[in-house]
Amino acid sequence: MQIARVVGTVVATQKHAKFTGAKLLLVQPVDLNDKPRGTPLLAVDSVGAGVHEKVLVVIEGRAAGEALGRKAAPVDAAIIGIVDHVDAQE
Amino acid sequence: MQIARVVGTVVATQKHAKFTGAKLLLVQPVDLNDKPRGTPLLAVDSVGAGVHEKVLVVIEGRAAGEALGRKAAPVDAAIIGIVDHVDAQE
Amino acid sequence: MQIARVVGTVVATQKHAKFTGAKLLLVQPVDLNDKPRGTPLLAVDSVGAGVHEKVLVVIEGRAAGEALGRKAAPVDAAIIGIVDHVDAQE
Amino acid sequence: MQIARVVGTVVATQKHAKFTGAKLLLVQPVDLNDKPRGTPLLAVDSVGAGVHEKVLVVIEGRAAGEALGRKAAPVDAAIIGIVDHVDAQE
Amino acid sequence: MQIARVVGTVVATQKHAKFTGAKLLLVQPVDLNDKPRGTPLLAVDSVGAGVHEKVLVVIEGRAAGEALGRKAAPVDAAIIGIVDHVDAQE
Repeated sequence: MQIARVVGTVVATQKHAKFTGAKLLLVQPVDLNDKPRGTPLLAVDSVGAGVHEKVLVVIEGRAAGEALGRKAAPVDAAIIGIVDHVDAQE
Repeated sequence: MQIARVVGTVVATQKHAKFTGAKLLLVQPVDLNDKPRGTPLLAVDSVGAGVHEKVLVVIEGRAAGEALGRKAAPVDAAIIGIVDHVDAQE
Repeated sequence: MQIARVVGTVVATQKHAKFTGAKLLLVQPVDLNDKPRGTPLLAVDSVGAGVHEKVLVVIEGRAAGEALGRKAAPVDAAIIGIVDHVDAQE
Repeated sequence: MQIARVVGTVVATQKHAKFTGAKLLLVQPVDLNDKPRGTPLLAVDSVGAGVHEKVLVVIEGRAAGEALGRKAAPVDAAIIGIVDHVDAQE
Repeated sequence: MQIARVVGTVVATQKHAKFTGAKLLLVQPVDLNDKPRGTPLLAVDSVGAGVHEKVLVVIEGRAAGEALGRKAAPVDAAIIGIVDHVDAQE
């Protein structure tokens, strides 16, 4: 899993039938100091996350599809939690 | 998922039997400003996308195969939506 | 599998139902000389690892979910062992 | 999927039982101008490709295993087509 | 699949139950000229490979677990063959 911040939303009217009703969020992976790293990606939300929230993102088809409770959805990233805080020890 | 732009097509007459009738498109991943990032890849189309359209691409074997409605197809990338717009908040 | 050191913990009160009771640890992949390489990631613990311990981390959805004994958990990394020592031969 | 060129063969007499009879080819991923990119990898052939041919390569365990018609084979890359031509539009 | 050289062993007394009896080897991916590329990783052995041998490594959870004949093992890399020779044609 990775820590990311929700930075936007995506609208796609014409899409695969299995995505009906799914909320697609744009998330930016961040490091422990909250700095962006790498490029943003799209994740399906399963916990009601909103823009600016820090979230836990699972990246992998099968795991992500299951987070939605729909095994057959062609998903490769899903938001599965909202981060309260990270305790990193040096 | 990633955002990409359809940039071409591929013809492969001699191919695995499970691809009969599948449309293979060449897609170039783009960033939020529509600039290419990384190298193009091949994705199977499931929504009737055309060249120059901006699309949602799922990258992973199982998820992508399911987007085609054929679980056993050896696919590792699929187009599963056409992007209307992206709302990125700074 | 990769060798990593446990460097912290993560608290996420609001999360996907299948993670109830799961312990999320922040792990930093290390090389053979114990130097960090790449960025830290989150892994679900299945062996009772603690902060500062050197661990074996499996990275992949299906494999990691099974390490927890719960196939349907949307997990993409799991701690599956505690390293006693590594014998690298030049 | 990626486009690659077949650049060699590999002989491994002592191997996992499920690979009996499988043809292992060394393939070099190429870009749209046929220039190598990244490092060569090994792929199992399912279409009768030969050295110097340009092929479609699926990279992922489950998808690749199915290309062979043997679900349980521990394969992570498979050749699933021979490329006739690529039509890339600027 | 990738070509790698076995460069060491790892001892992990406290580990996930499904790894009882599994042999963990440290493998270094190499290029066609036998030069190391990337970082070493841990792979479960399924063919009786020894230190210094050149091997075929499958990298992916499901494929690797099956190489062991135990589908439920949380494995993401497995040694599935010993390389006799590679014939690369320019």
